[in-house]
Amino acid sequence: MANKLLTEEIEPGLRVHYGIKKLYGSTETKWQQVDFVDLEPFGKTLVIDGLIQSTQCDEFVYHECLVHPAMLLHPNPKRVYIGGGGEGSTAREVLKHKSVTKCVMVDIDGEVVKFCKDNLPENAEAFADPRFELHIEDAKKILEESTEPFDVIIMDLDDPLEGGPCYQLYTKEFYEMAKSKLAPNGILVTQSGAAGIKMHKDVWAPIHSTLKAVFPKVSAYNQAVYSFIDEWGWNIAFTDTSRSVALTPEQVDKLIVERMGSASSMKFLDGIAWQGVMATSKRHRETLAKETTVMSTSGTHKFMHNPGVATMSERSKL
Amino acid sequence: MANKLLTEEIEPGLRVHYGIKKLYGSTETKWQQVDFVDLEPFGKTLVIDGLIQSTQCDEFVYHECLVHPAMLLHPNPKRVYIGGGGEGSTAREVLKHKSVTKCVMVDIDGEVVKFCKDNLPENAEAFADPRFELHIEDAKKILEESTEPFDVIIMDLDDPLEGGPCYQLYTKEFYEMAKSKLAPNGILVTQSGAAGIKMHKDVWAPIHSTLKAVFPKVSAYNQAVYSFIDEWGWNIAFTDTSRSVALTPEQVDKLIVERMGSASSMKFLDGIAWQGVMATSKRHRETLAKETTVMSTSGTHKFMHNPGVATMSERSKL
Amino acid sequence: MANKLLTEEIEPGLRVHYGIKKLYGSTETKWQQVDFVDLEPFGKTLVIDGLIQSTQCDEFVYHECLVHPAMLLHPNPKRVYIGGGGEGSTAREVLKHKSVTKCVMVDIDGEVVKFCKDNLPENAEAFADPRFELHIEDAKKILEESTEPFDVIIMDLDDPLEGGPCYQLYTKEFYEMAKSKLAPNGILVTQSGAAGIKMHKDVWAPIHSTLKAVFPKVSAYNQAVYSFIDEWGWNIAFTDTSRSVALTPEQVDKLIVERMGSASSMKFLDGIAWQGVMATSKRHRETLAKETTVMSTSGTHKFMHNPGVATMSERSKL
Amino acid sequence: MANKLLTEEIEPGLRVHYGIKKLYGSTETKWQQVDFVDLEPFGKTLVIDGLIQSTQCDEFVYHECLVHPAMLLHPNPKRVYIGGGGEGSTAREVLKHKSVTKCVMVDIDGEVVKFCKDNLPENAEAFADPRFELHIEDAKKILEESTEPFDVIIMDLDDPLEGGPCYQLYTKEFYEMAKSKLAPNGILVTQSGAAGIKMHKDVWAPIHSTLKAVFPKVSAYNQAVYSFIDEWGWNIAFTDTSRSVALTPEQVDKLIVERMGSASSMKFLDGIAWQGVMATSKRHRETLAKETTVMSTSGTHKFMHNPGVATMSERSKL
Repeated sequence: MANKLLTEEIEPGLRVHYGIKKLYGSTETKWQQVDFVDLEPFGKTLVIDGLIQSTQCDEFVYHECLVHPAMLLHPNPKRVYIGGGGEGSTAREVLKHKSVTKCVMVDIDGEVVKFCKDNLPENAEAFADPRFELHIEDAKKILEESTEPFDVIIMDLDDPLEGGPCYQLYTKEFYEMAKSKLAPNGILVTQSGAAGIKMHKDVWAPIHSTLKAVFPKVSAYNQAVYSFIDEWGWNIAFTDTSRSVALTPEQVDKLIVERMGSASSMKFLDGIAWQGVMATSKRHRETLAKETTVMSTSGTHKFMHNPGVATMSERSKL
Repeated sequence: MANKLLTEEIEPGLRVHYGIKKLYGSTETKWQQVDFVDLEPFGKTLVIDGLIQSTQCDEFVYHECLVHPAMLLHPNPKRVYIGGGGEGSTAREVLKHKSVTKCVMVDIDGEVVKFCKDNLPENAEAFADPRFELHIEDAKKILEESTEPFDVIIMDLDDPLEGGPCYQLYTKEFYEMAKSKLAPNGILVTQSGAAGIKMHKDVWAPIHSTLKAVFPKVSAYNQAVYSFIDEWGWNIAFTDTSRSVALTPEQVDKLIVERMGSASSMKFLDGIAWQGVMATSKRHRETLAKETTVMSTSGTHKFMHNPGVATMSERSKL
Repeated sequence: MANKLLTEEIEPGLRVHYGIKKLYGSTETKWQQVDFVDLEPFGKTLVIDGLIQSTQCDEFVYHECLVHPAMLLHPNPKRVYIGGGGEGSTAREVLKHKSVTKCVMVDIDGEVVKFCKDNLPENAEAFADPRFELHIEDAKKILEESTEPFDVIIMDLDDPLEGGPCYQLYTKEFYEMAKSKLAPNGILVTQSGAAGIKMHKDVWAPIHSTLKAVFPKVSAYNQAVYSFIDEWGWNIAFTDTSRSVALTPEQVDKLIVERMGSASSMKFLDGIAWQGVMATSKRHRETLAKETTVMSTSGTHKFMHNPGVATMSERSKL
Repeated sequence: MANKLLTEEIEPGLRVHYGIKKLYGSTETKWQQVDFVDLEPFGKTLVIDGLIQSTQCDEFVYHECLVHPAMLLHPNPKRVYIGGGGEGSTAREVLKHKSVTKCVMVDIDGEVVKFCKDNLPENAEAFADPRFELHIEDAKKILEESTEPFDVIIMDLDDPLEGGPCYQLYTKEFYEMAKSKLAPNGILVTQSGAAGIKMHKDVWAPIHSTLKAVFPKVSAYNQAVYSFIDEWGWNIAFTDTSRSVALTPEQVDKLIVERMGSASSMKFLDGIAWQGVMATSKRHRETLAKETTVMSTSGTHKFMHNPGVATMSERSKL
């Protein structure tokens, strides 16, 4: 093992050490500590505040699962809003869709965006795309001020921690505002934290029940992300109840070619993989069925069902 | 974090520390070191040679995925053979099926079996079931000597390591012998090591191609198991090509009730979960399509595509 | 490395992992968690509340330095009082002195004493010595109630932590009481925490200045103890100012033979080693010269000059 | 704890993690990996091949003990040879002596020397001193080629590992050659590895016995160095048997002022500290008395008395 390590506490009593092969660069922004390293098990890796954000080994798993279900399920996604996503990979996936005319990304940390732009050549094309529009601002503020509606809103933020900076962006009030910014047929998707057999109760399920208090139809899905040491979760909310994640493999594969021009645009997700991503376990669905939390700006919902999630939910996407 | 830790190297550069809340007991058998501990993140845990075998938190995920697909896909499983499985959980799941008249389990380590019997009350009923027959022997020898055929063979063993004790039980020659011991419609399933986005190339795919050299139809599947720090894999092989893992949720749920008397026999697997377990990603299927390895008793197949798997594949089931 | 580890945070940012070869036994007493393990680097080791108390590899270094300077510098030590010392090693060293007629040991945790008696055969003789008298009680209470004076008082306790159970036993008030219980020529010695180039400011120096507020002559000394990952410290206080640690090697060696019958009673300490133990560095003596803290029962002295000591000073002797 | 760590295996089963607050710079030279970091417990730290070389917290302890005993015990040290020492701190201490007219330092790794020069401002003055002469070469070669004798030779090198690059510089043959390069009254001192209660048998004692086969008088001494997680050792060899480390505190303090102009030149070592550094324990002296190893260029002395030292002795000075 390398003699320099990165260490993460996934939950109390579960600590992981990753060998650091090389440190490419570090920067301390106004908001957070950013490291760009080569980890023995994962290759090139972006680390923010000591938590792995995305790795060469499997960032495509996370980003394909975040972006494409919402994009493919919308009949004609033209205008897309990304809250967070400073690394650029979310925008990169969005811009693979030929229908997109405008992709607005709003991240609060301009230095992270610049740092990623300088260090992640695979996202350079996205940053340079004329359809891409970047705001360094609060993701809520820019959405509120938007006058033209969006077809798809993608929330790629830190987990909601009681008192944390992102809590407000996971509340009923935020979702109501966001819903009002969606065009007809509009879809919102949000990353929703760890979603494995143990952790899914902590953040994934409460986000699901909160969205259900606002949108007429919501689906929760999850997928193992190796470098996150667990399954990860997302929630997708529809304004149009006729939309459904229950597509056949053939329907998904056909949509992919139609929308992106080629099946080879994706490494992880295709028609069959879609079935795996959308299916959740009996235990997961029992949890969702019982969950009644509705997070509110005025509320004091404690997100942490067990002490572990305090740490866990600090793992975040920009 | 507790001040006593269990440590595992998942692959080079990826080391995990688990807090030990309590050590219930330890024993050094002729074959291996066995510890029975309470781990902070996972609860009661069986550890063999320093590697987590099964935990209170999620052993049902592993064992339901190992046992029930083969059992449900067989039209009428009466006689079942388990290679390994000393912990007793595999037999416990098998014996939930009312059709079963005989469940033969062959594990080489009698002390582990006794240790688990004494320490895992949840498996006591299985060990006491009149349909259950235990042999402390080499799993290959007893199968070879069997004169009555089996409907389902379940291999729940250590990963195949070059020169390791279990290598022989993952070869073409073993699978040919095992196939000859299957009754018509017979099904063989084997645990197949780590199967996440990075590791699936190492053991899961070569086992798949080896089985395909012997059986007319083979399906590979996988599922995240939190305490294994990755997705885990299995391969299921059919003698009857009309059998298929492509069941609808409704078909699976109906079979579960018919075979086990109640839907509540399982915590993780049901009709919808089945869709997720059986669907693999585009990347996984590309690997399977390219894999041509056929492991042979005389062969010298190096299982380890990357140096990490040497450690990884030591994780094992009895 | 063993797959079971003991972990200690010596100070923030300095964490040590010790391989556990064997766990002999564990007990949770009313007061603390006790483990008796075989550690790869140190052999048989007593661990209390996760902190290494004494090891086969070097417990004699600690205990010889704690006990013999006070015993040898007293002209004729007959009655000895030990505060703490539940492990029995301190009493074992005291009882090597032929002059001793009574060795009273007072430890609050009877279960620890019993556990050590059962697990440390090397101290069995001491526990069985007719001169040895054990009280399971508060070390302050028994000393206060003593009517016959002592020649030597040896304090072998947890470090003084603000609000911790032992704080009271490191105060001016306690030392005044203890002084009143000393016969003419009486000597008090106390373990005084980590005393290396960095840590000696935290506990060792404040104990020194507190003792100086009560006794006419006090000497601070230290010695590396490998399994404590630092130098360790003691303070010795004299009622008779003509006593001095400044003995020649020859004087010490002669005293050892006179008092214990043989030079071979000790493994670490002899006349030359004495010179090393009593000499402190320029930096250490500058710290002592500047230290003015006097700890008081009513006081609120914060012991921790740096955040690290909070953890460090939890390392303790019974 | 910081989320970036440095990790060292001190011996098997003893692993330390240090929090990295900041990475100032890294370089991979032809010979070794060099990191310059800010460690939570030690401050600014030089790390070579993953092993801590010297830290802001206590480098003065190591370097004062290495340099000043030899310098002070020589009647008039004018010409000094340093083998290794690339960091510059050894030269810095040597040049504090007013008698010195020439300080020749020979280190094989020019990049390390440059890296340290650029990163350690506290040694800048030494590097710029007109009496200082730097050679980037093999330390043996330059000494062999020297025609003018030296008063003091200071060996500040990696530990002697079987087959390692520095082994030759710890042999009888090397010491014979070095002795021939000493002027009358000449003194040689060498760092001699870990020297605590457990490790002193491994390297410190064999170096002592090897030097004794060449020089008429040799003294071994040691001192705890906190960041080395143990006591460290040195051996000093005299050509003139009337020289002795047995100075009184007053003699040492007087010499310090005479030679360096002021007592304040040192932070750790003075007359009293000298007593501590030169005194070794009974156990240490028993080991020295029994040790008969004479390392030879043709020899195959296995340095490692226990498996741990393989790692330990890799800790090194340039």
